[in-house]
Amino acid sequence: MANTDPQDGRRPRVVIIGAGFGGLQAARSLAQTPVDILLIDRNNYHGFWPLLYQVATAALEPQQIAAPVRAMLRRMPNVHFLMAMVEGIDRERREVITDRGTFPYDDLIVSAGSATNFFGLKRVQERSFELKDVGDALGVRNSLICHFEQAVAEHDPKKLERLLTFVVVGGGPTGVEMAGAIAELVRFVLRRDYPSIDMQMVRIILIEGADRLLLAFPAPLARKAQRKLEQFGVEVRLNTSVVDYSDAALQLKDGTTLATETIVWAAGIQGSPVGGMLDTELQRGNRVVVTPQLQLPDDPNVWVIGDLAYLTGADGKPYPQLATVAMQQGRLVSHNIRQKLQGKPLRSFRYLDKGVMATVGRRSAVARIWGINWSGPIAWYLWLAVHLMYLIGFRNRLLVLVNWAYNYFTYDRAARALVAAANLPSGNEPGAQGRAEAETLVERDWGA
Amino acid sequence: MANTDPQDGRRPRVVIIGAGFGGLQAARSLAQTPVDILLIDRNNYHGFWPLLYQVATAALEPQQIAAPVRAMLRRMPNVHFLMAMVEGIDRERREVITDRGTFPYDDLIVSAGSATNFFGLKRVQERSFELKDVGDALGVRNSLICHFEQAVAEHDPKKLERLLTFVVVGGGPTGVEMAGAIAELVRFVLRRDYPSIDMQMVRIILIEGADRLLLAFPAPLARKAQRKLEQFGVEVRLNTSVVDYSDAALQLKDGTTLATETIVWAAGIQGSPVGGMLDTELQRGNRVVVTPQLQLPDDPNVWVIGDLAYLTGADGKPYPQLATVAMQQGRLVSHNIRQKLQGKPLRSFRYLDKGVMATVGRRSAVARIWGINWSGPIAWYLWLAVHLMYLIGFRNRLLVLVNWAYNYFTYDRAARALVAAANLPSGNEPGAQGRAEAETLVERDWGA
Repeated sequence: MANTDPQDGRRPRVVIIGAGFGGLQAARSLAQTPVDILLIDRNNYHGFWPLLYQVATAALEPQQIAAPVRAMLRRMPNVHFLMAMVEGIDRERREVITDRGTFPYDDLIVSAGSATNFFGLKRVQERSFELKDVGDALGVRNSLICHFEQAVAEHDPKKLERLLTFVVVGGGPTGVEMAGAIAELVRFVLRRDYPSIDMQMVRIILIEGADRLLLAFPAPLARKAQRKLEQFGVEVRLNTSVVDYSDAALQLKDGTTLATETIVWAAGIQGSPVGGMLDTELQRGNRVVVTPQLQLPDDPNVWVIGDLAYLTGADGKPYPQLATVAMQQGRLVSHNIRQKLQGKPLRSFRYLDKGVMATVGRRSAVARIWGINWSGPIAWYLWLAVHLMYLIGFRNRLLVLVNWAYNYFTYDRAARALVAAANLPSGNEPGAQGRAEAETLVERDWGA
Repeated sequence: MANTDPQDGRRPRVVIIGAGFGGLQAARSLAQTPVDILLIDRNNYHGFWPLLYQVATAALEPQQIAAPVRAMLRRMPNVHFLMAMVEGIDRERREVITDRGTFPYDDLIVSAGSATNFFGLKRVQERSFELKDVGDALGVRNSLICHFEQAVAEHDPKKLERLLTFVVVGGGPTGVEMAGAIAELVRFVLRRDYPSIDMQMVRIILIEGADRLLLAFPAPLARKAQRKLEQFGVEVRLNTSVVDYSDAALQLKDGTTLATETIVWAAGIQGSPVGGMLDTELQRGNRVVVTPQLQLPDDPNVWVIGDLAYLTGADGKPYPQLATVAMQQGRLVSHNIRQKLQGKPLRSFRYLDKGVMATVGRRSAVARIWGINWSGPIAWYLWLAVHLMYLIGFRNRLLVLVNWAYNYFTYDRAARALVAAANLPSGNEPGAQGRAEAETLVERDWGA
């Protein structure tokens, strides 16, 4: 602990914005360095977002993918945590402005991640669920289950169609996993919970603008994933996109409409608004342009990593917005800050590609790892092993395994209690037709 | 399935309001009887409320004490479930009116439970957390943790005092368990999470109007519980009660005030508002007067059980509002409905007293079972065994045990991620003093 900042005798201060994969990795890698670290996040937990779709489909509990940051930092006395919203960054004064106060830095690591991109479709945004946080996932879950609850007493075929049509927009890994997980929930769990609902009426639709799913995967894997999804009951609509939501229906580019109340938007992300506070060059999707050493081109004290950073690889394409990229950049940024403090040369980022993978459903996944295409049960077991390995915190890992084993062997989900929903969502209009509805239920559901 | 209602050839319809301990027991006991049963609840889950305080103190997850009703009814084809709010009961037409339609009944079992009683203290009610539902418990949990998060950057000693004072009102089992669990959370978990907060500033206060805690327990046990709570750091204030909340402080009857933002109200319950829809005699606390056979005195087709029912035992006192009473009444009501359908005589309710128990903290509890007073670790193991036995659903039981074992051996709580809280609660005013606060944090928490 002898190394101190030469200017005024105190240790250098490093502020990290964002406790995601990149920021947390940077904090951990810097914990042995003689600097004081302040990690700021708007939440008090680190979210394991690759499993968020499982919270949305009642396979996991929110807390199983959320680890309290303070607990993770306990053995790192030079890392401090603050739950706060970042409101501005003053690069001239070297200060981060938050709703909980203003904090000076010597080095700033911005790993604020990404936000959903609706490409300006306001009405679609108002009616859609995003998949960026635990609250979003719980919203999807409650919507799925509430709509089945409402359908039990619904007699109007048009309303019933709308209640039981679930649309996922975006055919990347998130959209594919989400659509597959909804299909699994319906096939194995809800079918048994709602014997009075005709499961032929349930539609799960996945919309993708390109001519195939999973553009980041090799074409043969994408075709396999599509075939599996269709086997599981998902309608895959390629070559079309969403242009509006009106008259209680999604309006598609190909002129067709989809009457639905449940839209999950997985069609695009953009850099977090924190990027805009840096007053520097942004690339497509609001990503912040950085040097290969991960600094701002005109400010060697500000580092940007993860989804928010824009940096192109040897192939001229920007690095993908993946957890593995963010973690590798988190390690590099901590190395480079140490080098800078000692006046040594910095290293450039080189991505060690660990591959890509996506689950499609029960014992079915696709993966591209070590240059090899994997699919079917083997890919699924690979997926399982990788995700259990990366899940942070031993206890969460154990509980997730218990949950998954339970789901797997019983085809059940204990997590479908609507604990956060105080009321049914709108669209449920009792009153005049109350009696008619009741008769429908009695006829159909009362065994009369 | 030969037994049909003599009037018109269809099977008798039994509507049950409430899927708590009483209603669920009644549905299960009637499942073998040739009647059609409609179970109505505003939630889609059965809550194991005796463990709600553990959700409030991050020891358990909401879903671990909430079991989806539909899953519990799967093997009972004559039991149907509807998630709905009851809005009225028409005893003349024999109909239950809900926000999802109107449903006829031949027999109606009302087991709507109880609601919190604030005895008309409006301002206290506005600022207090109740302990009746999962949402309440999550509110308490978020408030506890958010106030610690806020305290990290707070420099005003008055505000700090208010943030770190936690008041539980009511010295019955719920209040005792709640206060003990908060003390445990602070001592073992939050102390380590917030090393910069002086734990001497944290106050946990339990208020009881009588001259001792746990009036339903023998006096020696109540004294032991009080001593243990005090050892754990809880201030027990007897012989006083809450009269108002004003100037950001609780006003007590003895003239003192308590500056606090976290009030948990466990000082009283009253019968559910559904009782008032029956248009019949109500007793103190809005409980519905029933015959020893559990029927309304003037309506043999309406049965009331559980917390909502008012029936006196051999000692002239009303039966306590406990899960065991509700479950025994649920069994009796199903027996009596069968008897009535066959024109046979009904049985009167007799309570088989299973005793009372309350945890005080880690390896500490008090219990009165089989006429014997138990306290200390033995009582705690008894409590553990009983609650694991009664916890509904094998999987929940397993997960609860995993959680408890983890908490017990690691002195940790994984569940303290603020997953439902989008923002800090009010009372957090950034702005002018932002810089000063920041300096405080940097001085105290940055290791500078």
